[in-house]
Amino acid sequence: MAEIRQLSQHVGENVTLRGWVEGTRGHGKVAFLVLRDGTGIAQCVLVKSQLPESVWDAHAELTPECVVAVSGDVREDARAPGGHEIGVTHMEVLATAADYPIQPKEHGVDFLLDHRHLWLRSSQQRAGLRVRAEVEQAIHDFLYDRDFVRVDAPILTGAVGEHAGTLFETDYFGERAYLAQTGQLYIEAACPAFRRVYCFGPTFRAEKSKTRRHLTEFWMVEPEVAFADSDENMRLQEEFVSYIVERALERCGDDLEVLERDTSKLELVKPPFPRISYTEAVEELQSRGSEVEWGRDLGATDEGDLMAERDLPLFVHDYPKQAKAFYMKENPADPRTVLCDDLLVPEGYGEVIGGSQREDDLDRLRERIAEQGLPEAAYAWYLDLRRFGTFPHSGFGLGIERTVAWITGKHHVRELIPFPRLMNRLYP
Amino acid sequence: MAEIRQLSQHVGENVTLRGWVEGTRGHGKVAFLVLRDGTGIAQCVLVKSQLPESVWDAHAELTPECVVAVSGDVREDARAPGGHEIGVTHMEVLATAADYPIQPKEHGVDFLLDHRHLWLRSSQQRAGLRVRAEVEQAIHDFLYDRDFVRVDAPILTGAVGEHAGTLFETDYFGERAYLAQTGQLYIEAACPAFRRVYCFGPTFRAEKSKTRRHLTEFWMVEPEVAFADSDENMRLQEEFVSYIVERALERCGDDLEVLERDTSKLELVKPPFPRISYTEAVEELQSRGSEVEWGRDLGATDEGDLMAERDLPLFVHDYPKQAKAFYMKENPADPRTVLCDDLLVPEGYGEVIGGSQREDDLDRLRERIAEQGLPEAAYAWYLDLRRFGTFPHSGFGLGIERTVAWITGKHHVRELIPFPRLMNRLYP
Repeated sequence: MAEIRQLSQHVGENVTLRGWVEGTRGHGKVAFLVLRDGTGIAQCVLVKSQLPESVWDAHAELTPECVVAVSGDVREDARAPGGHEIGVTHMEVLATAADYPIQPKEHGVDFLLDHRHLWLRSSQQRAGLRVRAEVEQAIHDFLYDRDFVRVDAPILTGAVGEHAGTLFETDYFGERAYLAQTGQLYIEAACPAFRRVYCFGPTFRAEKSKTRRHLTEFWMVEPEVAFADSDENMRLQEEFVSYIVERALERCGDDLEVLERDTSKLELVKPPFPRISYTEAVEELQSRGSEVEWGRDLGATDEGDLMAERDLPLFVHDYPKQAKAFYMKENPADPRTVLCDDLLVPEGYGEVIGGSQREDDLDRLRERIAEQGLPEAAYAWYLDLRRFGTFPHSGFGLGIERTVAWITGKHHVRELIPFPRLMNRLYP
Repeated sequence: MAEIRQLSQHVGENVTLRGWVEGTRGHGKVAFLVLRDGTGIAQCVLVKSQLPESVWDAHAELTPECVVAVSGDVREDARAPGGHEIGVTHMEVLATAADYPIQPKEHGVDFLLDHRHLWLRSSQQRAGLRVRAEVEQAIHDFLYDRDFVRVDAPILTGAVGEHAGTLFETDYFGERAYLAQTGQLYIEAACPAFRRVYCFGPTFRAEKSKTRRHLTEFWMVEPEVAFADSDENMRLQEEFVSYIVERALERCGDDLEVLERDTSKLELVKPPFPRISYTEAVEELQSRGSEVEWGRDLGATDEGDLMAERDLPLFVHDYPKQAKAFYMKENPADPRTVLCDDLLVPEGYGEVIGGSQREDDLDRLRERIAEQGLPEAAYAWYLDLRRFGTFPHSGFGLGIERTVAWITGKHHVRELIPFPRLMNRLYP
């Protein structure tokens, strides 16, 4: 059996393809069939006078998503999608698809999400998820090539993450377990083994948010580097993000075209990225009339304002201590702040990375845990990392769906994960 | 700052390394320090007459897992681990590690697992987890190079998996959600979009098992291919497993040496692998005196007996329907059986893959769901895949920890995952 991706190797031959019908049309003596086999799209041409009547009649009955085996001669045709056309010599219907729910008309997004298992077949969805897959492989390749060791962090944890109150909980043989919100704390433990480590996997937030940037289950990559400070951490981030964007531009051109993405803005994404401190960001916002006050975290609106006239990703660094997680290192130059950064991207996509140098001082870390009302016992092992050979280290987390939403230009993250989990959506 | 992995580029230079003390010894006038910086191990030599007294005295105080910055001249030395030696010119202690819990003596496994966050630093653990990371990258590379599209399956699901009764459950905004036992059903939905797909991630079984092959949280890769039958499925599996083993042999030689793995047996792992049917397997077992009866699944003991005199992985295919999951396709040649395979590996490691052709007939699938007492409503979307353009397809799941245990020769899977989750273990 041939595949559409390999048609260029079969020009002049008679091949058999199997796949799903995307659409059909007929003109009395000539009819067309657009076939999708998962590796590509091919236009198949049926000439009535050259085919058995049964084949011609079967074509007339085809509906979208029927499965057919098509035999035909492969011809080069620059006008055809994919550059080839199949001159059909035989066709067999392998499966029907009467009343296929998704029709070529406008459906509401709830309807489409209810039929996510079928919506995946649509061209926009295919393109978006192919970019996601490319981004994921690019992430692994970038880190592997730089000697990072992948360290899978646990999902089931006894300790709470950084946002208590938004945890999914489960009974674990009589104990209480929580679904991890981050793998960072765990992989910090692997730095003394491998120096450069990362985890990649699903993370969970039981947040009652209904914004276009929130999922209850989302994927993150979290690199962590021993002996790296906050400055090196940002340099790694800008190289990482630039590499990911470049890979998508290089290898997903067709998909970005299907998505009608204006790629000129992505082509600007090259290191270094500009940096401003949180304090500078607040001053800039205030000078534009914002009422933001020094001390509170920046929200989506603030981020939008900051990025309104910027074309490149922007680091905002050194946030106030009280606005950030307990594990971030106090800034020696200004102890009201911590050595951290958020990476904001243009075009309204906001934050895709949060990073920081980690607090490596045992006493200060214990204080922060107490201040935030977290149970020290759950973090005993994490404190051990500061007791036994503590070391400066930094890392960050990049959200896969937000990054892919930005690269693809899709409005809502829910289309960039195969089966989105939202506050009101657990099906399919 | 230099790194040990790059010492060969610095021969004859004075470099500064930072890392953790693995061990020290002294001989009056000359002392040694083995340094681990996460990228490698280097022997550092201190000559009393050539160093400030403070450095010499500091060396005497060092204990394992202290963090030091060592400056010194890089010399080639074939006898030294890594092939280089550092002639120390200066040393600074950056962090202490008094009373480091893991000492160079025998600890019980419970003690070590309680200190997993520190145990990761030990040479055997580093080696095992580095092989794991290599295997994971090899998996992604193999599939990416063959045009598989990665499709991340959800962890939180409303549907139950294949083993009801061993599910972790959580409250999902008032609904009941379960942690996925497999991503297969979901990625089947993506076959009509991409033909070849796979998911890679953690899966969960709330099983009260305490064997050396069970974890409550373990990682799986699950490839799925449209229009592939059971025979092609097994061919993909043997190529996949052979590639993974080859990559580990090629790129993890040092680690396998640390683990004292006899690699001669792994070098035999090349496709094709022998195949026997379940019925033949039962006959073989019976001929050896086993009381196994046709109809029940093979257990670890049966698998051990089958593999006792085999050096190559072995496919056992076409198990009885009642012993296998509802989604496996009925065998047209013998409807008492399904088109499936388990891949058993030698040396006592048992099953590392379970695969099957999937039932693509709507009515037969509904029957199987009813027979097994599963709630059809939860599978409505899965049945849709048979309603709208159904297609033959096959796939399999490979367990990461079992595969890595086999490759590394480790007895228990719990050492091949960074933070194992066992029935009685949720910490650290």
